[in-house]
Amino acid sequence: MSNLKKEILSLLDRERFISGQNIADMLGVSRTSVWKSIKALKEEGYSIESVTNKGYHLKNPPAYVNPTALSMLISQSSLFDRVEYFNTTPSTQKEAFSMLPESNDTFVVVAEEQTEGRGRFDRHWDSPGRRGVYISLVLRPDIPISDIIRFNLFISLAIAESIDEAFGVETGIKWPNDIYIHGKKVCGFLTEVVSESGVINAIVCGIGINIFKDDTVGKIPTAISVEEAAGSHVYMDLDLFMKTFMGNIEVYYNRFLNEPFSRIRQDWIEKSVIFGRQLRITESGGTFHGRALDITEAGFLEVLDDDGNIRKVISADVEL
Amino acid sequence: MSNLKKEILSLLDRERFISGQNIADMLGVSRTSVWKSIKALKEEGYSIESVTNKGYHLKNPPAYVNPTALSMLISQSSLFDRVEYFNTTPSTQKEAFSMLPESNDTFVVVAEEQTEGRGRFDRHWDSPGRRGVYISLVLRPDIPISDIIRFNLFISLAIAESIDEAFGVETGIKWPNDIYIHGKKVCGFLTEVVSESGVINAIVCGIGINIFKDDTVGKIPTAISVEEAAGSHVYMDLDLFMKTFMGNIEVYYNRFLNEPFSRIRQDWIEKSVIFGRQLRITESGGTFHGRALDITEAGFLEVLDDDGNIRKVISADVEL
Repeated sequence: MSNLKKEILSLLDRERFISGQNIADMLGVSRTSVWKSIKALKEEGYSIESVTNKGYHLKNPPAYVNPTALSMLISQSSLFDRVEYFNTTPSTQKEAFSMLPESNDTFVVVAEEQTEGRGRFDRHWDSPGRRGVYISLVLRPDIPISDIIRFNLFISLAIAESIDEAFGVETGIKWPNDIYIHGKKVCGFLTEVVSESGVINAIVCGIGINIFKDDTVGKIPTAISVEEAAGSHVYMDLDLFMKTFMGNIEVYYNRFLNEPFSRIRQDWIEKSVIFGRQLRITESGGTFHGRALDITEAGFLEVLDDDGNIRKVISADVEL
Repeated sequence: MSNLKKEILSLLDRERFISGQNIADMLGVSRTSVWKSIKALKEEGYSIESVTNKGYHLKNPPAYVNPTALSMLISQSSLFDRVEYFNTTPSTQKEAFSMLPESNDTFVVVAEEQTEGRGRFDRHWDSPGRRGVYISLVLRPDIPISDIIRFNLFISLAIAESIDEAFGVETGIKWPNDIYIHGKKVCGFLTEVVSESGVINAIVCGIGINIFKDDTVGKIPTAISVEEAAGSHVYMDLDLFMKTFMGNIEVYYNRFLNEPFSRIRQDWIEKSVIFGRQLRITESGGTFHGRALDITEAGFLEVLDDDGNIRKVISADVEL
């Protein structure tokens, strides 16, 4: 049943109109099976029209990460073995961590809603139902743990470029863990690692993106949604976004494994919002002001502080 | 009650003989309380004699890690906030991981028995009841994740020296994760790390030491217990061992935070069993033969393989 839904969705995506009989013939199933699958897809949120003498027609994809479309993407992915889908969950990151010991699989955890979404330093991340993308990626590279710091640099470019490409906006990367639009946060991500004796056992990368306008997120003065930034003329196609996103994750993850940061350094710096302005930086040791000079090969931020000292920062709150 | 037990144990440890009345007077409690605590300590395994006209006398400490003695040690430790004690548990490492999200505490998890003890690569580690030390240390240094690889080098010296000092044997370190006596494994340890965005959130270091002769462990041809190695003339004092061990962990952990590996390099190499002999090394990429040349500052093993190439190894099976 699940495979049939995917195949039908794939046909609907390819053809403007296709009859139920044609679908049944092409997939070698009964018309009743086709009808049942179409009904299930509609219940999942797809707007499928039935036009007399023409057949079925996919009007537009659903306004949330659709499980059928996602499992199609994952089945084509060379990175991930499987997907875990939740209508609601405390946190995709928490789910991912609890599944780690079960196998050595790579997988993605996606939820329509998180009740306890969190960002860095255990800060709350609003995750209202069907208003955003809430996803955790579980990857298992066979590399020394010291290589992980560069991961965020590669992955932040993948996320930022995906949002730009799919929704026609222009994001900026706020080192170390946020994506911004118009000076406000549209996305936060968090890379957690479990390692064993100096070697990575699993990377668990949680990503939250505010996609649609929402009352909860809308009340936060420092937050913005893609929809607000894109304007009402842009059609918010989450299937397209997820396709772009999974593709970019694959590209940038492979680059992370095979290339030094210097190969993406220029792209990253151009996409960054922290250069050329006064920053307020809070580390566990305290707060200071300064200007970003560079990102080192290992992923440390180099800052010229107001006393003229060059400081290397690895994990910090950066305020513009 | 728990505090009273500790205080009585401390008095018994200091004095050769001490009367119940004296204990009651010194601690400002009733004789009944003293009697009850002594009874409880006996039930925990302490051999406390009552000699007429002389008073109580501590014959010898129990042949397992005693919860009262351990909590005394931890209360004096500057590294750990608390101790979690289990008579039996699947694995101290598993318990430690499940407790991580509850707080930012540092703590130790100790069990008299593990039913699912495991070493590297999820290999089983036999942990029969009251036959060994099974402990996980949870530490929370505020350092970049890239610093962690050196941790094992410092901690292996701490463990090896503690076994030597407390039991009068001579151990050797088998890089990366074992302690050997007479060419057989007496201890394995496993350092797992949880990190967030390039910074360590927690180090969870699990250590299993075969202390007493045991039928299960005794059947493994590559394993040995401290008792077998020490010989029957050595009195196996686990209280003394734990005192030595906790002290050494504190010393070497502080050195790990503040010193480069070069400061302990010579000590480490002298304690190592891998130099000057042919090694068989299995990595995820395959197996090769060679000789150890050095350990790098970061903790990688440098090997001259039989084809004359110098290889750097980070996580591997090393066979002598």
